[in-house]
Amino acid sequence: MAKIAVLGYGVVGSGVVEVIHKNGRTIAGKTRADLEVKYILTRRDYPGDPFEELIVKDFSVIENDPEITIVAECIGGCGAALEYVRRALKSGKSVVTSNKELIAEHGCELLSLAKERNLNLLFEASVGGGIPILRPLNQCLAANELTEVYGILNGTTNYILTKMIRHGLPFDEVLKDAQQKGYAEADPTADIEGFDACRKICILAALSFGKHVYPRQVKTVGITQITAEDIAFASAAGMRVKLLGRAMLNEEGKLIIYVAPHLMDEENQLANVEDVFNAIIVKGDAIGDVMFYGKGAGKLPTASAVVADVIDASKHAESRKYIHWVDGNDDYVADADAYPMRWFVRAAMTEDEARAKFGKITVIPHQTEGQIGFITEPVSRYGINAASEGCEVLSVISVLD
Amino acid sequence: MAKIAVLGYGVVGSGVVEVIHKNGRTIAGKTRADLEVKYILTRRDYPGDPFEELIVKDFSVIENDPEITIVAECIGGCGAALEYVRRALKSGKSVVTSNKELIAEHGCELLSLAKERNLNLLFEASVGGGIPILRPLNQCLAANELTEVYGILNGTTNYILTKMIRHGLPFDEVLKDAQQKGYAEADPTADIEGFDACRKICILAALSFGKHVYPRQVKTVGITQITAEDIAFASAAGMRVKLLGRAMLNEEGKLIIYVAPHLMDEENQLANVEDVFNAIIVKGDAIGDVMFYGKGAGKLPTASAVVADVIDASKHAESRKYIHWVDGNDDYVADADAYPMRWFVRAAMTEDEARAKFGKITVIPHQTEGQIGFITEPVSRYGINAASEGCEVLSVISVLD
Repeated sequence: MAKIAVLGYGVVGSGVVEVIHKNGRTIAGKTRADLEVKYILTRRDYPGDPFEELIVKDFSVIENDPEITIVAECIGGCGAALEYVRRALKSGKSVVTSNKELIAEHGCELLSLAKERNLNLLFEASVGGGIPILRPLNQCLAANELTEVYGILNGTTNYILTKMIRHGLPFDEVLKDAQQKGYAEADPTADIEGFDACRKICILAALSFGKHVYPRQVKTVGITQITAEDIAFASAAGMRVKLLGRAMLNEEGKLIIYVAPHLMDEENQLANVEDVFNAIIVKGDAIGDVMFYGKGAGKLPTASAVVADVIDASKHAESRKYIHWVDGNDDYVADADAYPMRWFVRAAMTEDEARAKFGKITVIPHQTEGQIGFITEPVSRYGINAASEGCEVLSVISVLD
Repeated sequence: MAKIAVLGYGVVGSGVVEVIHKNGRTIAGKTRADLEVKYILTRRDYPGDPFEELIVKDFSVIENDPEITIVAECIGGCGAALEYVRRALKSGKSVVTSNKELIAEHGCELLSLAKERNLNLLFEASVGGGIPILRPLNQCLAANELTEVYGILNGTTNYILTKMIRHGLPFDEVLKDAQQKGYAEADPTADIEGFDACRKICILAALSFGKHVYPRQVKTVGITQITAEDIAFASAAGMRVKLLGRAMLNEEGKLIIYVAPHLMDEENQLANVEDVFNAIIVKGDAIGDVMFYGKGAGKLPTASAVVADVIDASKHAESRKYIHWVDGNDDYVADADAYPMRWFVRAAMTEDEARAKFGKITVIPHQTEGQIGFITEPVSRYGINAASEGCEVLSVISVLD
């Protein structure tokens, strides 16, 4: 019997308590892991809640209870969550978390703390919600030299882009609709500016390539500048627009990492990943491309990933799961803007002007008065910026090849 | 240092030796597993092969060498492979295998042997080649009550169907082309008759629902009866044809399991899985739908999955990975023909005759002299058979909803 403390009783925390309660018998049957939630840490009162008697308000109750072997952190952010996770590890408790910000910013430090004390620190739910991705990356693909990991990492922006594509609507209108439906938060900044996807690609890159990358090192472009005109040009070219996080090693072993919207062929596997679904593609030397797909967020998917980690931590109480990465030095991350790729450009100019400025281009057959949309040959972002000088360039979006 | 014996030196076996040799250092760095191939068991000689000095022809050399802790079985079939795997387990060695026939037919017995001796028996490569699916099923989705698992489990038939759809060609012609390109074997029976997919869905069902299912219990229909006319009707309906293995629990807790071609909407995620790619969808109560996608076969993908299992077995030499299922009694498997679903029917009859015989139908707008194609309402296969009596029915194919 593993006794667990759940920190935070919001969407994810209450989901964790619910899944353990509801599926506990199946879990015990399938995995021999017998789980019991002993405490729920929350500042609020929940009178009448079925788990009311488990609520505590002082973390030191948990910290000082030797029966607690696993702490499931579902608070979020890097404030109290960071403090409690540090204290939990220092007091000899394994930690499971869905907190991507915590791992992206402090993963290296916390993994070292866990390693020193032979404890587990697991965070499957921090990327892709309920989609199993970190464990397969770490275990199933262990025999591969991984070369690239990328994908649709944020459900809110994918929902917004899907609606823009389907109905030809402008960004602002779709965002408002998404907020009303609960798919976007009241303050949607972290999603629409790409910060959430940025934290996730940092975690994926660290696991894939063994070195920590901090969100501040990652060039991050969100979807707020994507217009209905961009989408119309993309559709005319047989392409869709998706926000991708992407990380790959270049020939010098440096990391190219960024978050940005991409145009991609509508036959691309990612192009058909719609609404709030996420999909992550991993490239390995032996395995080729492998894709993981599912709902990237939501109470029960995320909670089920947290509980799977709790099960794993309870079964590996003695022999620690080996997840570890080292700190990356400052020059580990290459300049993403120097990476050559094709670009979609929308501009107020004629075809002749476009060819004169951008060289060999493929013009998209779509009529919009005074505007042209085209796709360049592979060139760095600096090259695009130089060519754009003195022109009225309205949009520049990466193309995924 | 874990010393390993590789049984069989064909496509998969030589791939395993190659991956351990080539990626050994990365593997050791990432996972702390230090692997060395000590023996390769094969009946043939390989003069000049870089690993020639490792070759042995007598299994008892491996059986009696206490240094060998892990045996990687890459022989295939249920002859020598079954004997050696039994002997390996009985002599205290963990076993890793890519042999789907072995696990589908003898998994229950072999898992019991492994359990009694506290050994590992791992077989990630037996389903989906290099796609991580069994480990996520067993671990990441452990907190879910799984309700259904299904997918495109055979690359050869998916390649054939893809070519038939793209080029409107008949089955025989595409099969010949696939054989020339090495995508289909000289004797393609196991693939095209659905036997390979059948073994894989048996393994997926056993892991998902905890009871062994034998291939002989599974209704299995291959793709040899699919014609260019069926594909043309499907395309006219905005649908594609895919061979699926499918397993789900009904309300009585009995298993509905079968292998059969299905028509599905072209917007379905599986519809865009083309060529030799596989994709497997798992439904859980907490997680919803999760999909795993990648190349389902091939030397290096399969070998990398075998090596990942070898790594896992070496790291869990002391604490066995818990994979286990019990034998299913005879009445565990329900009659798949009694399960109501929609059907595509192609027949030589008029629309009026079709409505008189099959009740409410959706006629597919596609002109072929003297033939009609339509989709029925949900009905059991028995219902379709009864309605078909006395009519010239040319094709009956399941529809995936």
